[in-house]
Amino acid sequence: MANENVVDNKKTSEEFRKNLIAFMQQKGFVWGPSPEIYGGISGFYTYAPLGKLLKNNVENSIRKIFQKQDFWEVECPTVLPKIVWEASGHLGGFTDPVIKCSKCKSTFRADKLIEEKYFELGEEGKTAPIENDKMLTVMSELGIKCPSCKSEFEQEIKSHNLMMKTTIGLDTEAYNRPETATTTYLPFPRYVEFFRSKLPFGVFQIGKAYRNEISPRQHLLRCREFTQAEGQFFIFEADKKEYPAFDKVKDKVLPFWTYTAQNEETGVEHITLEAAYEKGYLKNRAYASCVALAYNLFESFGIPVENMRLRQHDLDERAFYADDAWDLEVKLNAFGWTECCGVHDRTTYDLDQHAKFSKKELIARTPENKKEVPHVIEIAFGTDRPVFALLDIFFEKKDKDQGKTIFKIPYHMAPVKVAVFPLMKKAGMPELAREIYEDLSEKYIAVYDQAGPIGKRYLRVSEQGVPYSVTIDFDAVEKGICTIRDRDTEKQAKIKVDEIEITLDKLFRNKIKFDDLDVIEN
Amino acid sequence: MANENVVDNKKTSEEFRKNLIAFMQQKGFVWGPSPEIYGGISGFYTYAPLGKLLKNNVENSIRKIFQKQDFWEVECPTVLPKIVWEASGHLGGFTDPVIKCSKCKSTFRADKLIEEKYFELGEEGKTAPIENDKMLTVMSELGIKCPSCKSEFEQEIKSHNLMMKTTIGLDTEAYNRPETATTTYLPFPRYVEFFRSKLPFGVFQIGKAYRNEISPRQHLLRCREFTQAEGQFFIFEADKKEYPAFDKVKDKVLPFWTYTAQNEETGVEHITLEAAYEKGYLKNRAYASCVALAYNLFESFGIPVENMRLRQHDLDERAFYADDAWDLEVKLNAFGWTECCGVHDRTTYDLDQHAKFSKKELIARTPENKKEVPHVIEIAFGTDRPVFALLDIFFEKKDKDQGKTIFKIPYHMAPVKVAVFPLMKKAGMPELAREIYEDLSEKYIAVYDQAGPIGKRYLRVSEQGVPYSVTIDFDAVEKGICTIRDRDTEKQAKIKVDEIEITLDKLFRNKIKFDDLDVIEN
Repeated sequence: MANENVVDNKKTSEEFRKNLIAFMQQKGFVWGPSPEIYGGISGFYTYAPLGKLLKNNVENSIRKIFQKQDFWEVECPTVLPKIVWEASGHLGGFTDPVIKCSKCKSTFRADKLIEEKYFELGEEGKTAPIENDKMLTVMSELGIKCPSCKSEFEQEIKSHNLMMKTTIGLDTEAYNRPETATTTYLPFPRYVEFFRSKLPFGVFQIGKAYRNEISPRQHLLRCREFTQAEGQFFIFEADKKEYPAFDKVKDKVLPFWTYTAQNEETGVEHITLEAAYEKGYLKNRAYASCVALAYNLFESFGIPVENMRLRQHDLDERAFYADDAWDLEVKLNAFGWTECCGVHDRTTYDLDQHAKFSKKELIARTPENKKEVPHVIEIAFGTDRPVFALLDIFFEKKDKDQGKTIFKIPYHMAPVKVAVFPLMKKAGMPELAREIYEDLSEKYIAVYDQAGPIGKRYLRVSEQGVPYSVTIDFDAVEKGICTIRDRDTEKQAKIKVDEIEITLDKLFRNKIKFDDLDVIEN
Repeated sequence: MANENVVDNKKTSEEFRKNLIAFMQQKGFVWGPSPEIYGGISGFYTYAPLGKLLKNNVENSIRKIFQKQDFWEVECPTVLPKIVWEASGHLGGFTDPVIKCSKCKSTFRADKLIEEKYFELGEEGKTAPIENDKMLTVMSELGIKCPSCKSEFEQEIKSHNLMMKTTIGLDTEAYNRPETATTTYLPFPRYVEFFRSKLPFGVFQIGKAYRNEISPRQHLLRCREFTQAEGQFFIFEADKKEYPAFDKVKDKVLPFWTYTAQNEETGVEHITLEAAYEKGYLKNRAYASCVALAYNLFESFGIPVENMRLRQHDLDERAFYADDAWDLEVKLNAFGWTECCGVHDRTTYDLDQHAKFSKKELIARTPENKKEVPHVIEIAFGTDRPVFALLDIFFEKKDKDQGKTIFKIPYHMAPVKVAVFPLMKKAGMPELAREIYEDLSEKYIAVYDQAGPIGKRYLRVSEQGVPYSVTIDFDAVEKGICTIRDRDTEKQAKIKVDEIEITLDKLFRNKIKFDDLDVIEN
């Protein structure tokens, strides 16, 4: 499934990154930094047509998985007044450690410089210390210099607030939200009403968030404007341990990497969720079920299982309110193991804070009619990283003598599902092909292309990840028989023109295999 | 189709608005102004679970219609640096006329106060003058006073800029975008590459925009944060007149209300697009096709045709660069005829401006290989207004003696598609109903409900607009036969438990009618 590119060292991954980003730009997946005609600003990107289709597929997968688990989607404002961010703690403590070059005065995130250095040294996944003075020591030990001009850094790390400030009305101080989570908690009394006081319940939100990062340099992985997708599961504390829906997922085998295993440098354990729970890796069945849900989401995007692991936060890595915390990490060719989702038991922290600041009672009633603040388990991720991961994992750059560059995205996630080509621009082929294209467009994202030699057109759509191409030749016009081509095997088969749609439908739903068709033997 | 509520006067529409907004809040469609626990800020709303599903349906309709017309979706940043908005003209001229109460100092938009007064007087659709001094005169003629305290206004109208300012990095001045359009134009050189220099081409964007309105008071119709959906069609000037795809839509009958007809107070003409073109109502076939596309979008949302009209801008109403401009208006019970979409021929204005400010050549090459700046025809709308319109038009509040409140949303747009109820909480009914609910959830947005008498549960889902309810009784458990109920007719039919999904599929795709089922005669 995954491609053969493996990151061995800095050079390979830099080379890969360069190729990958050029591919994204040239083939119409991601453009930027945006706005390009004005020089571009770090951390802002544009989803080009194919990238946007891919992102929509990721977002629709999220909706489908959450909805099946009875989570309901909401959409909350992205701009909120100051008091909200005082309550959430973002105005006080939401800062990045910034260090400045003593010579060129460029600014960088100290923790990211350290982690990039670890990655180069083959110590993937090792994290920077949290305190500013410890970071300075580590930077000096590792001999980290300014990436721009190679000079020494100033011996000071400053805390830079990440919030983008704005104004509502004439003078109300407000901020572009730095996360969706806080905004999802605010309508809590409405949820209790909507769910008719029945807990547990889940809600989720997919939407923009903003962090004024200092010199973000990791493409879609670290943007100043990005799309988050976060599920919030509200449950009474007493119900967490025995949560019954756990039974549906308990036999699922997942790759657990506990903090003990990380410290003792033992590997990932592939065990069932139930075994992990019994061993005490996961504190309760409700939290364990949310970890399974997170994994399920990333599986649904088509991320290969061998590229995923669940990494437990060490005690000193957790937010002070977090009762348990695991990350889902995805192995990228361009950046190594990368955090793509976090599952956090936030307990009553957020509701308590907003109750305090808003002076409203944020409670639900237990079956015994007792007022209680429920716990919140959060599944926090975004959609930019999954899109980046899919491009990173399934892009295969080949040298000319080795074959063709191809985007081997799993078929169900392909941005464009089918291409229609007239073999030649004559004898009714373009007219018939156009008609078929228009019919297929009712159901699928399709492209029509009549320009250039057929081989070049096949190549072009392989680079775009299009699973199937339909070619309209003389036989199609005269006998109603056309050719369908499979992207990965490059096999071709003859099918009836009036069975194209049903054939595609069966192929996409795995009702038939390509080899079940009338394959042309070469 | 549409309900019987007709706006006769101020009182009726105020009463209707009150009921409609209460319905949206209580049933889980739209909450706000948000954040409610902190008192709420005008112009910010939260899409609650049912409202968000409805909004997703609207947005997916937009994608489907645009994609069928070969428009490609992009997603551009929502925060852009100052220079972009200098080029677009938003920093200079994007202002609202604001007037202040001489007593309570509340501020309002003068133009909106005038238009609200016209509406009360039965002069729907009449617009306020553009110049500040003329507005003052009209306000005085109409005797408009402060809506808050009924005092006189100060005799001055100030221009208030609508942009929400922020900062990127340490000190780059930037703004939350006030529209998607400008951001869609910026990657123009990339489009030319992506479409391999073949014009015309279309792109669209669905995303947030921000306008710091003064005291917005029209619920989702005028938000400070809102979702736009805008299509941009790039075409060489020489190709606009004979645009061949016009032939596919030319026989479509549309409701045209030219500015001449508005001034002469003659009515709307229902004529074909071709007739409208021949009469000179629409300047060219490319523009006419975009008007048809706009209408097609709103038809796809399920807005009844009798609630739509196309209103031409008068010459002095158009933006100075606009070569032609028509609005699609929707008749609302709460606010009368309301602009929901504008189709503007922006000519080369935007590309010229950004070429000038970015010092980049923004051109394409004609088939004769001549450099040329293409024209842009814009289809500008949003998704909040269609959601509001669907709720406004299909909500039927009934008094207790008149029957039941119902949300008669067209079935294809319903947020939740099916409800599953066990008749009683015993004899295996909840278990079977739950299993059916889980199966149906694979394909449809479904709800499960076992609380309360069955009649109350039917009522509850009718208020939510759920088209079909499936009830699991003794027969279902013992003989595999259950009951399906139609929302609008309240008819019930017997169907096999293992044919629920296929029956729903046929009903939603109009392959069968409800009466074709084994309907139970009362």
